[in-house]
Amino acid sequence: METRELVGRLQAVVGAEHVVYLPEDLIVFERDASIDAQLPAAVVFPRTTAEVSEILAVAGELKVPVVPKGAGTGLSGGAVPEENGILLSVSRMRDILEIDEENRTALVEPGVVNLELSSEVKHLGLYYAPDPSSQYACTLGGNVAENSGGAHCLRYGCTINHVLGLEVVFPGGEVAWIGGKAPDAPGYDLMSAIIGSEGTMGVVTKILVKLLPIPEAVETYLAIFESVPDACEAVSSIIGNGIIPAALEIMDQVVTRAIEEAHHVGYPYDAGGVLIIEIDGMQEELDEQREAILSLCREARAREIRVAQTAAEREIVWKGRKGAIGALGRLAPNYYIQDCVVPRTKLPEIMRFVEDVAERHDIIIANVFHAGDGNLHPNLLFDVRDSDQVRRVITAGEEIISACIDAGGSLSGEHGIGTEKQEYMDWLYSEEDLEAMRKLKRAFDPDWLFNPTKVFPTGEGPHAAKIHIGKAPVHATAAAVWK
Amino acid sequence: METRELVGRLQAVVGAEHVVYLPEDLIVFERDASIDAQLPAAVVFPRTTAEVSEILAVAGELKVPVVPKGAGTGLSGGAVPEENGILLSVSRMRDILEIDEENRTALVEPGVVNLELSSEVKHLGLYYAPDPSSQYACTLGGNVAENSGGAHCLRYGCTINHVLGLEVVFPGGEVAWIGGKAPDAPGYDLMSAIIGSEGTMGVVTKILVKLLPIPEAVETYLAIFESVPDACEAVSSIIGNGIIPAALEIMDQVVTRAIEEAHHVGYPYDAGGVLIIEIDGMQEELDEQREAILSLCREARAREIRVAQTAAEREIVWKGRKGAIGALGRLAPNYYIQDCVVPRTKLPEIMRFVEDVAERHDIIIANVFHAGDGNLHPNLLFDVRDSDQVRRVITAGEEIISACIDAGGSLSGEHGIGTEKQEYMDWLYSEEDLEAMRKLKRAFDPDWLFNPTKVFPTGEGPHAAKIHIGKAPVHATAAAVWK
Repeated sequence: METRELVGRLQAVVGAEHVVYLPEDLIVFERDASIDAQLPAAVVFPRTTAEVSEILAVAGELKVPVVPKGAGTGLSGGAVPEENGILLSVSRMRDILEIDEENRTALVEPGVVNLELSSEVKHLGLYYAPDPSSQYACTLGGNVAENSGGAHCLRYGCTINHVLGLEVVFPGGEVAWIGGKAPDAPGYDLMSAIIGSEGTMGVVTKILVKLLPIPEAVETYLAIFESVPDACEAVSSIIGNGIIPAALEIMDQVVTRAIEEAHHVGYPYDAGGVLIIEIDGMQEELDEQREAILSLCREARAREIRVAQTAAEREIVWKGRKGAIGALGRLAPNYYIQDCVVPRTKLPEIMRFVEDVAERHDIIIANVFHAGDGNLHPNLLFDVRDSDQVRRVITAGEEIISACIDAGGSLSGEHGIGTEKQEYMDWLYSEEDLEAMRKLKRAFDPDWLFNPTKVFPTGEGPHAAKIHIGKAPVHATAAAVWK
Repeated sequence: METRELVGRLQAVVGAEHVVYLPEDLIVFERDASIDAQLPAAVVFPRTTAEVSEILAVAGELKVPVVPKGAGTGLSGGAVPEENGILLSVSRMRDILEIDEENRTALVEPGVVNLELSSEVKHLGLYYAPDPSSQYACTLGGNVAENSGGAHCLRYGCTINHVLGLEVVFPGGEVAWIGGKAPDAPGYDLMSAIIGSEGTMGVVTKILVKLLPIPEAVETYLAIFESVPDACEAVSSIIGNGIIPAALEIMDQVVTRAIEEAHHVGYPYDAGGVLIIEIDGMQEELDEQREAILSLCREARAREIRVAQTAAEREIVWKGRKGAIGALGRLAPNYYIQDCVVPRTKLPEIMRFVEDVAERHDIIIANVFHAGDGNLHPNLLFDVRDSDQVRRVITAGEEIISACIDAGGSLSGEHGIGTEKQEYMDWLYSEEDLEAMRKLKRAFDPDWLFNPTKVFPTGEGPHAAKIHIGKAPVHATAAAVWK
């Protein structure tokens, strides 16, 4: 199939000005926020569900792969184009179609930016809860694809807990509406299978989300510990005592020092572990929880607990946390961010293991993570020009993934599998488990043409592990490094 | 295929004593708690996952339909056998395999009774939250199949919110594990698609559920109103004020009178609507919520609010509510229980509509329902021997379903579709929506042999509507009545 023919067909659907196909124009579309890159044959910008449907029908007819894309902030490669394929951008589909104040729902198009929705409903005292760190840029369509989380998902859950219904265009162009305003819609819950399918099942064209009332009161504490395992114990005992804070975020010394040097937010230089605790709700509820939390932190050997006294102080605490990954750029040219999960009670043990891994492989690991969810983010720091270091980083990363799975956890908490972790999927799942998932995909994509090279293992084995290289991505497979 | 051959093959898998096939023995297996009935060719009682797998392999080879069954308390026909098919009972698979106190999870077999699990973990201060009214009898396997709810699912959610992982045997015998202890497992969320699939996707053989800490304090109120719409307004304003009680249950005068006559629990005879409000949590939280709730009820014109002062008083309030459906037997020989859902804010309007429907069709409708969820249970009372009344009941039921869908709601909240409502599915879903669901089923059941005649419309149209006939079920299609 000629690219010219494909471009002509796409232009007939959306108009000539909404198809990009010249090589010099395509170059900015080759990446998402992962390490992979690939030039597509064309990028198409539909405005309506009908146009999306026509595009998928054309793609099906011409047997051309399609990859959907929101803002491209995904960390695992879900929105990286296919060679000779169509990249379908939802960036023109960005209307908030309806806000139902009474039932607290919003119907939005997939290109609406996460934070934009909260801003639009703020005057009603409402907000959209899931808050990935990229929320100022990432789209709700992308959030649905990745089932995105965030610091406050401990109390409020990930994207899947906030979506009531979806309009989906399946490969081939069929349009279906799944879910609805009433919870637990009858029939099969296809909606949950679409959410988190990493853009491999179809294009979401409308999203019906829940809105929550902005909490009456918020309090933020910074608890300072001698070690990360101590901070982990505080997390376990807070939750074990029936308190579910809005956020429980741990940072280790490597991270807090880097943040201090970059952002000067007043974090301690000499503490082994720092825990951010945020609670929200009614003021009376907070008054009750505050005492319990402070006393549980002291029991876990907190040496100091700071209470943010004003909204400005709270913002400073969060400015540090949200700038953590950027600040790591001060320590090494490259980092490989892991995204494993363990049952919460296994946190102290796994964090000791991560320390041990760093020591054995002589690498620096910076930890900043959603402790309340048991969701680790060890950042393995390295210099991609040092091939021995790269090899050690890959091995260390694999040891961490493997240990998390052995602890009853999983290989991804919120960043997805995409291309980054597809070769590790068979560490968690049996061939039968994976085949069950493949059957689901084949049911809607019998030719396996829709975002076809993600999530599932290729069979090349974990030696194809890839490295997330900070702001200047480099495709560094172990095989390439070992040459 | 000879029944003899089938029985021999099944006996070879589970032993002769675990297959029932004589017609006189089969008769007790022909029903669940819906109106339909069908004799199977054989009932088989496997003990292990391996046996379930072998049974499904035999069924696939011989092209014999299989229907799985828990306790058979389902109201919509999901566990009614297929003619010449295998009924697979999970009643021998009833071990609690593991209780993980630290991570608050339990791994159970599908035949474990709902209430039994809570009883077993009570000494640890834990319980399993979803509480269908049949919880003393229904199994967790059946709960997974139907995504069962209950009075307390307002605050805690239905079954789907409490399941972390499932072992499933798919048609043909393939065994897969989906989900796991870590939340939001990577890959496709097939688990959510299995939960609530009404036993049409495969046999669930292990269930990993969450356990919750028993709340520190519980309070129960009985608010008495002149009308059901007034009670509905109280519900809307309680939730609108950011309070999510554990339960919000409304009963109308028909119901409270019947309950009073049957159970003598002290409900008023002359009130138009009664609202049970239960809150739970920390004592301080309750102290705060109590004032707000009482004042919101008064604003909604409650004429009296009783506060249950002791655990015994609370139990009496619930004894009445849980005995409601049984008490209706005093009013008419038969009833048709509807299970529609509307967005909560539409409750006052829809309840006025239900009153109007009762008047126009000259039938008695008794309302007892999960108001907090917007989940109506209008019970249409009638005498099956009066064919004109039956016709009016069917029409009235269809008008209610249709009005709920028009209000942005749905045709089933928690009882499922099964055989009872399959002909109405295309009132809610387009052919494309239904076809998307069929694709999911075909992916795992290409021959459409597993519990094959449920959920999806047969194309016979709504005239095939069936009537739920209290304790003495009668299959009363409109067509039969109109003869």
